[in-house]
Amino acid sequence: MDFGECLGRVRASAPLIHNITNYVTVNDVANVLLACGASPIMADSPEEAEDIQTICGGLNINIGTLNSATIPAMLLAGKKAAELGHPAVLDPVGAGASALRTNTALKLLREVRFAAVRGNISEIKTLAAGFGTTKGVDADSADAVTEKNLASSVGFVRGFAQKLGCVVAVTGAIDLVSDGEHCAVIRNGRPEMGRITGTGCQLSALTAAFITANPGRTLEAAAAAVCMMGLAGEIGYKNMLPGDGNSTYRGRIIDAVYNMDKAALNKGAAFEII
Amino acid sequence: MDFGECLGRVRASAPLIHNITNYVTVNDVANVLLACGASPIMADSPEEAEDIQTICGGLNINIGTLNSATIPAMLLAGKKAAELGHPAVLDPVGAGASALRTNTALKLLREVRFAAVRGNISEIKTLAAGFGTTKGVDADSADAVTEKNLASSVGFVRGFAQKLGCVVAVTGAIDLVSDGEHCAVIRNGRPEMGRITGTGCQLSALTAAFITANPGRTLEAAAAAVCMMGLAGEIGYKNMLPGDGNSTYRGRIIDAVYNMDKAALNKGAAFEII
Amino acid sequence: MDFGECLGRVRASAPLIHNITNYVTVNDVANVLLACGASPIMADSPEEAEDIQTICGGLNINIGTLNSATIPAMLLAGKKAAELGHPAVLDPVGAGASALRTNTALKLLREVRFAAVRGNISEIKTLAAGFGTTKGVDADSADAVTEKNLASSVGFVRGFAQKLGCVVAVTGAIDLVSDGEHCAVIRNGRPEMGRITGTGCQLSALTAAFITANPGRTLEAAAAAVCMMGLAGEIGYKNMLPGDGNSTYRGRIIDAVYNMDKAALNKGAAFEII
Repeated sequence: MDFGECLGRVRASAPLIHNITNYVTVNDVANVLLACGASPIMADSPEEAEDIQTICGGLNINIGTLNSATIPAMLLAGKKAAELGHPAVLDPVGAGASALRTNTALKLLREVRFAAVRGNISEIKTLAAGFGTTKGVDADSADAVTEKNLASSVGFVRGFAQKLGCVVAVTGAIDLVSDGEHCAVIRNGRPEMGRITGTGCQLSALTAAFITANPGRTLEAAAAAVCMMGLAGEIGYKNMLPGDGNSTYRGRIIDAVYNMDKAALNKGAAFEII
Repeated sequence: MDFGECLGRVRASAPLIHNITNYVTVNDVANVLLACGASPIMADSPEEAEDIQTICGGLNINIGTLNSATIPAMLLAGKKAAELGHPAVLDPVGAGASALRTNTALKLLREVRFAAVRGNISEIKTLAAGFGTTKGVDADSADAVTEKNLASSVGFVRGFAQKLGCVVAVTGAIDLVSDGEHCAVIRNGRPEMGRITGTGCQLSALTAAFITANPGRTLEAAAAAVCMMGLAGEIGYKNMLPGDGNSTYRGRIIDAVYNMDKAALNKGAAFEII
Repeated sequence: MDFGECLGRVRASAPLIHNITNYVTVNDVANVLLACGASPIMADSPEEAEDIQTICGGLNINIGTLNSATIPAMLLAGKKAAELGHPAVLDPVGAGASALRTNTALKLLREVRFAAVRGNISEIKTLAAGFGTTKGVDADSADAVTEKNLASSVGFVRGFAQKLGCVVAVTGAIDLVSDGEHCAVIRNGRPEMGRITGTGCQLSALTAAFITANPGRTLEAAAAAVCMMGLAGEIGYKNMLPGDGNSTYRGRIIDAVYNMDKAALNKGAAFEII
């Protein structure tokens, strides 16, 4: 796997990504897409969901702040993406925290063909079980992927990817990305990323951009995006100065994505394929 | 009053705060909650308002960008919070600027039991009178709390807190926080904070986090939050460099909240109880 | 034309600007209005659109994330602005990318009297033709205003301004601002501004503030706003340090607006009137 080449294809092809995402982190999502070389468009009205998806190369659906208009827009855009052969990514933010989120995520999984689903372990377990609980939008610590439970966690992610027929990415202290056969185990990132809102949302958008720009390499592209976000978190952290906090860190991570090149990504990527 | 201990309890208990807030400053609200040690979840659909409130410890309602779906969500979440004994905070952004805002704020005050209401003097006077006008979302300067009108301003805030049966916080150059009996007069902050959007919204979220983490100490917790925001504004300002402006200042304030510890808060807090 | 004086009038009169804008860049729009000395209020509910416009001095309509509630709010606010003699600015974000956007922009142009319309060349050509296509929210490169096609581009912008009876501003590598008679050709700015989301949205808001604060000087005020945004992009870029990327650049531009004074604007403005 050559993650640097995956990034190179994003920068070379500048894919236009349609985002139906939450209003909390939407600005960071747009800026991180621009930082990686992609181009964002945000459009969540059912009236234009199909038009917008038609002119785009890929789709990023994030259920962080659902409302009665955006759910039909997600379904319309998702079906149009499938019709056009565009890859779609689902970020099931807060699945398990409310029936609305859980049911919407499950409905999307049933009715839309996704190339990848990315969430924390609690969200993904909720989807896998068809029910569950989370503490807000963070994973329950009891569920966290650790070195100790790595084998069973990999088995779970691989199995769920097989069941869905798409790539599943579970991110946390250790990230797991599987297409149902292989599984990338990624150890990039910093715990302080959890003190910023939106690093997960940004990663899902990057995943959509990488998969769109790397047709036929979905697992590699998704793993490259996960590695890059984690590595950007490491680089951004190194650039912190005394007095800096989570707000400055937020910007430093996007800046690190902006400045990342193929060589830096390949050098910093900390992963194994099992 | 030990504001440092109040902050310590936020960091120790990491309360999950449900925010139904405006889309202008929502990202800063989420990041400042993370900065103080709390955990944010944003959810403004009536379909999930009760579910989300149920898994949270407190509620922050901000009327900065109302729409026809969020108002019922505010009422549902507020009533659920009352049912569960969770504290709720109201930020009546722009009350007086439109009938929609004024009437919604008054309706919320009638139908939801709040632990605290925080606004600028114009918004709070609008609520107290049941009618009024403001210049946008800033206080009319004629209404500002000054050293000259301090006694009558304290009397007004104390009286309104008595009438509502909750803490009322009026913030500006001088901040007043009263539970109807005592009143904290706080002189932290910088006038340049008014050149950034969202410092008030952030403070209301902090107030919700502090009250949630400090049961039985509502006045102390609210005053601690007000002091901390003002002190963060002072620290952030000291960290400004040539060429920096309001955008950098915005991040510097959240960073200062992130780095604040008990000792720094107690040392920097400038308040008296009258 | 004295752009510094135009800025001075903004800072002296602090116009309150009503924004019905997208949720992607709304925070930057609010902060850049504060940075230039204006005061923002965001309100997109039909229930309060007229009330809010009544207390404001000007209106900024941006169609970046339309929904079924915000379109009627735009029409109500626009008509109220006309009734009260308040200037209104239209930013037709993504016109041509979907029928919803194109038709909404055309409907607004027919039913509301605008003082200025600001967009990229693709959006403005879409409006001029009554139909068209764009690549997302960026201009098709084939359409870009260049030194080579300058004369015909100026002719197009001038002609469309005549047809609309208002100022038209087309921004890109070279910016053109015309009232149908004169045309300002502005060469401020940096190509890296295209790697940040929202510089166009911010400029439209600045344009509304400048026009509101400079009655009877609409062309001069709009050109001053365009120059200031471009110059802020140049100054912000000079302030970039190693490791900085598009996220830091975003803040640096708003900071540069905050710190801009009359002399700096007049000295840095690179324009000619033809």
